[in-house]
Amino acid sequence: MKAVQVVGYHTKLQLTEIPEPGISGPLDVIIRIGGAGVCRTDLHVLEGQWEAKTGVGLPYTIGHENAGWVHAIGAAVTNVAVGDKVIVHPLITCGLCRACRFGDDVHCENSRFPGIDTDGGYADYLLTSARSVVKIDDSLEPADVAALADAGLTAYHAVAKVARATRPGDVCVMIGAGGLGHIGIQVMKAISAATLVVVDRNQAALDLAQEIGADVTVLADGDQVAKVLELTGGHGAEAVVDFVGENGTTAQGVAMLRRAGNYYVVGYGENIDVPTIDVISTEINFIGNLVGSYNDLQELMALAADGSVTLHTTKYDLEDFQRALDDLDNGLVRGRAILVP
Amino acid sequence: MKAVQVVGYHTKLQLTEIPEPGISGPLDVIIRIGGAGVCRTDLHVLEGQWEAKTGVGLPYTIGHENAGWVHAIGAAVTNVAVGDKVIVHPLITCGLCRACRFGDDVHCENSRFPGIDTDGGYADYLLTSARSVVKIDDSLEPADVAALADAGLTAYHAVAKVARATRPGDVCVMIGAGGLGHIGIQVMKAISAATLVVVDRNQAALDLAQEIGADVTVLADGDQVAKVLELTGGHGAEAVVDFVGENGTTAQGVAMLRRAGNYYVVGYGENIDVPTIDVISTEINFIGNLVGSYNDLQELMALAADGSVTLHTTKYDLEDFQRALDDLDNGLVRGRAILVP
Amino acid sequence: MKAVQVVGYHTKLQLTEIPEPGISGPLDVIIRIGGAGVCRTDLHVLEGQWEAKTGVGLPYTIGHENAGWVHAIGAAVTNVAVGDKVIVHPLITCGLCRACRFGDDVHCENSRFPGIDTDGGYADYLLTSARSVVKIDDSLEPADVAALADAGLTAYHAVAKVARATRPGDVCVMIGAGGLGHIGIQVMKAISAATLVVVDRNQAALDLAQEIGADVTVLADGDQVAKVLELTGGHGAEAVVDFVGENGTTAQGVAMLRRAGNYYVVGYGENIDVPTIDVISTEINFIGNLVGSYNDLQELMALAADGSVTLHTTKYDLEDFQRALDDLDNGLVRGRAILVP
Amino acid sequence: MKAVQVVGYHTKLQLTEIPEPGISGPLDVIIRIGGAGVCRTDLHVLEGQWEAKTGVGLPYTIGHENAGWVHAIGAAVTNVAVGDKVIVHPLITCGLCRACRFGDDVHCENSRFPGIDTDGGYADYLLTSARSVVKIDDSLEPADVAALADAGLTAYHAVAKVARATRPGDVCVMIGAGGLGHIGIQVMKAISAATLVVVDRNQAALDLAQEIGADVTVLADGDQVAKVLELTGGHGAEAVVDFVGENGTTAQGVAMLRRAGNYYVVGYGENIDVPTIDVISTEINFIGNLVGSYNDLQELMALAADGSVTLHTTKYDLEDFQRALDDLDNGLVRGRAILVP
Repeated sequence: MKAVQVVGYHTKLQLTEIPEPGISGPLDVIIRIGGAGVCRTDLHVLEGQWEAKTGVGLPYTIGHENAGWVHAIGAAVTNVAVGDKVIVHPLITCGLCRACRFGDDVHCENSRFPGIDTDGGYADYLLTSARSVVKIDDSLEPADVAALADAGLTAYHAVAKVARATRPGDVCVMIGAGGLGHIGIQVMKAISAATLVVVDRNQAALDLAQEIGADVTVLADGDQVAKVLELTGGHGAEAVVDFVGENGTTAQGVAMLRRAGNYYVVGYGENIDVPTIDVISTEINFIGNLVGSYNDLQELMALAADGSVTLHTTKYDLEDFQRALDDLDNGLVRGRAILVP
Repeated sequence: MKAVQVVGYHTKLQLTEIPEPGISGPLDVIIRIGGAGVCRTDLHVLEGQWEAKTGVGLPYTIGHENAGWVHAIGAAVTNVAVGDKVIVHPLITCGLCRACRFGDDVHCENSRFPGIDTDGGYADYLLTSARSVVKIDDSLEPADVAALADAGLTAYHAVAKVARATRPGDVCVMIGAGGLGHIGIQVMKAISAATLVVVDRNQAALDLAQEIGADVTVLADGDQVAKVLELTGGHGAEAVVDFVGENGTTAQGVAMLRRAGNYYVVGYGENIDVPTIDVISTEINFIGNLVGSYNDLQELMALAADGSVTLHTTKYDLEDFQRALDDLDNGLVRGRAILVP
Repeated sequence: MKAVQVVGYHTKLQLTEIPEPGISGPLDVIIRIGGAGVCRTDLHVLEGQWEAKTGVGLPYTIGHENAGWVHAIGAAVTNVAVGDKVIVHPLITCGLCRACRFGDDVHCENSRFPGIDTDGGYADYLLTSARSVVKIDDSLEPADVAALADAGLTAYHAVAKVARATRPGDVCVMIGAGGLGHIGIQVMKAISAATLVVVDRNQAALDLAQEIGADVTVLADGDQVAKVLELTGGHGAEAVVDFVGENGTTAQGVAMLRRAGNYYVVGYGENIDVPTIDVISTEINFIGNLVGSYNDLQELMALAADGSVTLHTTKYDLEDFQRALDDLDNGLVRGRAILVP
Repeated sequence: MKAVQVVGYHTKLQLTEIPEPGISGPLDVIIRIGGAGVCRTDLHVLEGQWEAKTGVGLPYTIGHENAGWVHAIGAAVTNVAVGDKVIVHPLITCGLCRACRFGDDVHCENSRFPGIDTDGGYADYLLTSARSVVKIDDSLEPADVAALADAGLTAYHAVAKVARATRPGDVCVMIGAGGLGHIGIQVMKAISAATLVVVDRNQAALDLAQEIGADVTVLADGDQVAKVLELTGGHGAEAVVDFVGENGTTAQGVAMLRRAGNYYVVGYGENIDVPTIDVISTEINFIGNLVGSYNDLQELMALAADGSVTLHTTKYDLEDFQRALDDLDNGLVRGRAILVP
């Protein structure tokens, strides 16, 4: 089969022919790829940022946002059948450790991460596990939802926490109306009636935010903290979700918080650097957010099925992977780039 | 009546005679002081650290950890009667803002803080509110519990959060076995079966910690992070409560955390300074902690009444306030210093 | 002022002239009534159903769903000012008991209930408390929201519990699309993405339910349990909210539940009568629901202000109270009947 | 190997020789039995009470409370190794359904129940799954903890819910100080500081309850409701755990509840029969309780390991199974009867 592989760091990916994966374990599932999302992390892999962390052997197949059709299943698989349309959770988890047993499978003590530390989905077929495949509604197409597998799932996971901790009349600020923010806004409108304020440096992104559900938008022109405080009667917001995490957004986000408010860390880059006296005197919390669980992905697929969450995508043939990566690197992709074998 | 007042900053407190407070509002309560805790914050008040924050006019009466007997009540007071033994919550709250209506009265939008921004309890009598007085069990004496009103209440509040988020078999690390830690250990043993690891630089403090309930003690000799990781099979602890918050404990505490763990900020001094990528990749949370609510104080008094939480105290006559403050400043107080009028 | 009073049981209400209420306590608030909801409970009061429970002296003014403008305030009132538009929480609570201090003010140990056990709002003016008045948005009119004070608040309170316990993809069944159900449907759509199935015996009610947000409607023609099971793949629903509570709905509702599901009791009439072995073998819960808290009412008013929850009303002059009651008794009121002084 | 089997209903169990189970699936685990609890359910199996529910083919091996040593493991088992001491969760669950993925594995859509619907542990060896084995501390012996696998786990599961919903100063009433109650009391003291009131008809059971942690005991002599109300100032208890569920305890338990209180159904027999108006006017909840989850069993084993929970047992050789069953039936067993191969 065709596969796009990492053959070295600081060099280009390479399209090659490799054997199709086969079923060896009872929970193995092989997916015929319908779409594989092209993500900024793929660029970082090539830059070698993950080399030391994973120690993955080269060459290997890249691609961690995958959806498609079940092609083959192991003997113990009961949750999907051959032919089912599925989206693939980015992690393969053990199911036996305490974290897995609590549904916090993202903290599995023995997980693998296809596309990062083992073969991923820039290929005709992907080997994953029964524990990683979520059936999607008949009305959805794999290539349309693939990018929800990782970026979308992270946004859903964080926003679902916000929704559980806020109430009508509360204010949630989202910093960053890009890829994750775009999903976050749609999720928030579907599951919460809190007032949603979106902050971004880009007016076009704010216009889109307004269209898809933001109640108020604030241009990050240097006065964004003052504007949020003004909007909230000087008190600040009950929740701030920071999809950026760099260029000063962490300090700004904290300054936008109400007493006893929660600051959700999603984007990353800079340090959180805050005096402990400020943390205790206002009794604020900082909430870390990684990708969502398997059940989170089921929930996000329910929102996709009823039309609450949609994604703009630009599709490329798998063979055109290099153009897709270049377009991403050059800011030329509208929505998310998806490779289709 | 006698009262010990702040008459200027960077100068000594002064014992003086002032008029007794009287009832003017319907929810007013006047307490005959049975004991007033001497707290490090009192030293900070004199150093002027609170001057700008509060703008309190001088002279005023200091003392924010108070207990005694109800001496007089306003017309609308229904929860206590004259003669009742009570401990006094450190804040006077409005009861009408949304935070008060949720029981988060510590975040009241209109609170006052006797001893800090209005007259406190280094005196024969204290004016407070029906919303601030908690009846104590017959078996308890005001002078014995007064110091639980602020320091103890803060420890209770943080540890009660830990207990709600952990389970038998989980590990809770407490950094700092001093005044707050001493209460925190007792509370934890009363309300949780999580394994309690106490870290301190002082072996004598650890010996006491062991006596009152610590399951394991770890001397903070530079290897404390490694020791906690070893104790937890390399995974780290589900909860770290940092009663210190300076001299590097925040970085050490974070390093002791398990994935998805919670770091409780109680002590303060230094900054939390942590890369956002570490926060999201391990999905840890930072939980701020201020003093507890009125209901928290009721719960802490239930633990005091059944003997689960006790406090070592050294009593001084109110007239000996200077000696008490000097002893505190010089590290000569065993347990907590209490002024008794 | 004009007031409509209960002058005896099993006899008609009487319009009379009584003195305006005055401020006597510091938290007193006097409301100039803008609208008073006419509720089935008012009919029950006249039938004497509340006589023994309340022991209220006659004559007294009826009416417990009130909204209007602040006319006068006591000396300690800080949350509203004269002229403010407000809705009135049905209970006057003490603010001092442990339930009040937790925000569960509905379980106040010392509450009064204007219109039921003291003078209510079928009048020009109503005496209530600062603890009972919620400011409403400029865009709202008292007569339009008055009926949300009790019926609407009960529906909100129950549905907010459902929203906190369900997730996208879960199924919530509401039994009864009448007055409370009508509000419940709108609230659910605003704060949850769970699939909403509405069951009623009346096709016209179901048509309206569909218009205002039900995802699926089921006619209660005897096959409703089978239909809900079919809709849920034989598993049943994660939540059933029973706004009826009589004529067999409790048994039907329990039969519609999924394992570990929650059955929310709102409507009342018959007994819950279920074998304990069924409760434990499926691990289902029964959740009682009374009217919501003060903070719940703030949240419901946020939903009213943004247009998420609206109410059909038919307005009557206060003098026409008898016609309003007769219309209600005869099923002739479209939406809720509101008396306007 | 030796096995005690059901060979017909209304007839005696029979000791026989059958082949040892072997590993066929990758998650299979074979346990060398160290102890198998003799439970009242075993008597009910023989009476045919489960015949229709399970349709299990005869003969099959009985016994659902098992502990021992790992004897063999399938290829995919990573959580235990041969030789490990383990207790066996009573269910074999799929790990793939949404309930399993949430950690609510007791509500697995595809579970089996060894000893009830497939071969159990009255034998030398038991076939179970990696998903059902919990390692126990070196200090524990399988025969000493076996009976915690089902009866103890049920008590733990219910009491852990109580602990999460109550606070110091709250009152929890437990009805029934027999097998489950005995565990429940010990668990409650280990993880909660709520005041524990134990009600039983048997004074000897109450004396034991007091010894192991009850704060107050109440003889169920007909006045038990009045006594609990008196103990709680007329308000009732925040929580009632009913380990009996028959002979009127459900009505008595409900009468002991405080407003907004929770009634935990554990024992079963009679119906809950309560007017919906009482449920809503006091806003009480009924909480169903089945056996605990896999993670609950880990937590209970942590309590057993630190000595918080212990069990009186009477051991019998496996060959003496009939005597053990007869003793149980005749009320002659002190603590729990355990068969040891």
